[in-house]
Amino acid sequence: MSIRLSPAVESLVKALGKLPGYGPRSAQRAAFHLLQNRDESLDELAAAVERVRRGVGRCRLCNTFTEGDICPVCLDEERDPGLLCVVESTADQMALDASLAWPGYYFVLSGRLSPVNGIGPADIGMPLLLKRVGAGVEEGVLREVVVAMSYTPEGDATAYYLIDALKKRWPQLRVTRLARGLPAGIEIEYTDLSTIANAVYARRDA
Amino acid sequence: MSIRLSPAVESLVKALGKLPGYGPRSAQRAAFHLLQNRDESLDELAAAVERVRRGVGRCRLCNTFTEGDICPVCLDEERDPGLLCVVESTADQMALDASLAWPGYYFVLSGRLSPVNGIGPADIGMPLLLKRVGAGVEEGVLREVVVAMSYTPEGDATAYYLIDALKKRWPQLRVTRLARGLPAGIEIEYTDLSTIANAVYARRDA
Repeated sequence: MSIRLSPAVESLVKALGKLPGYGPRSAQRAAFHLLQNRDESLDELAAAVERVRRGVGRCRLCNTFTEGDICPVCLDEERDPGLLCVVESTADQMALDASLAWPGYYFVLSGRLSPVNGIGPADIGMPLLLKRVGAGVEEGVLREVVVAMSYTPEGDATAYYLIDALKKRWPQLRVTRLARGLPAGIEIEYTDLSTIANAVYARRDA
Repeated sequence: MSIRLSPAVESLVKALGKLPGYGPRSAQRAAFHLLQNRDESLDELAAAVERVRRGVGRCRLCNTFTEGDICPVCLDEERDPGLLCVVESTADQMALDASLAWPGYYFVLSGRLSPVNGIGPADIGMPLLLKRVGAGVEEGVLREVVVAMSYTPEGDATAYYLIDALKKRWPQLRVTRLARGLPAGIEIEYTDLSTIANAVYARRDA
């Protein structure tokens, strides 16, 4: 006598349940919310999803999501063409750029390597990155590639792979990673030991 | 020099941001997730949303979401036609029915009254409820209506309104609310005082 959702609603719950942060219960809540607010929420989501499906592809130069052939960042002529920063995602790219510390261009990987999940170099956009770096080196403009991966196991693995691949092909190219050290605004007392150790090893003159 | 999302992606972030449990940041994360997993997640969500938009309406008898004209619960002939339980949502209906304690039918309101937000009786399906109860009384089959609202301020307000409307029209009809008392599995020590007081007032012989 237990009540089951109609198959269409069930399919919506299932699709919503794959979004980050949603479990079966919250996905059901979201589905009911969409049904309850058909005119605004459901129709708006339908239109947005369709717009993205049809209109959004990847930038031919940096692999980020964009509506045109080349994204606005790659078209920005005020950036330094000698500097290329490789990030894992558009979210990372936005965070880095918001810091106002990077004057160069970006290459946005489609995530990071994860052999366990069958995600290899080609899946994250490695061939396009090598093409971009190769062109920059050949033209004599590219001076440095920052491999801006997080210091997590998967980020490290991806970074090591990239650094190795870049250095083997272009031994003269400067390849760097982001500095490690203390985060801003966090007491040393509450900082993890590995971060403190890295801050000690990389200490600098005051 | 800060990076902005493309308008299409921005529209998706906005639509996702209206889902319960999502803020601007998590909606952005979800949008990137969908873009990153186009074939599975984005296409699946698009298909599910379209299916629901086209195929799901409201049950002509109980107002719940359903793909047909009348929902499976209203078509279930093993339920007691003398008993009608009025709930706020399909989620509440599912929870009540899963308790296996209700042998009757349901009427599913489209939410609850909220004068502050301009949500009045007609918006939550009141006319259809009165029609359904009226038909049941006229046929001489309906014996009891349980107004199964939560004991929250908005739930209470909705319940008072419903009870008043039903009793005025059909004074002989039995109208009830769910019992108040201690929840299962929670220590008295950690139960709120208002719940304890209600459990004392409604105490019963052991």
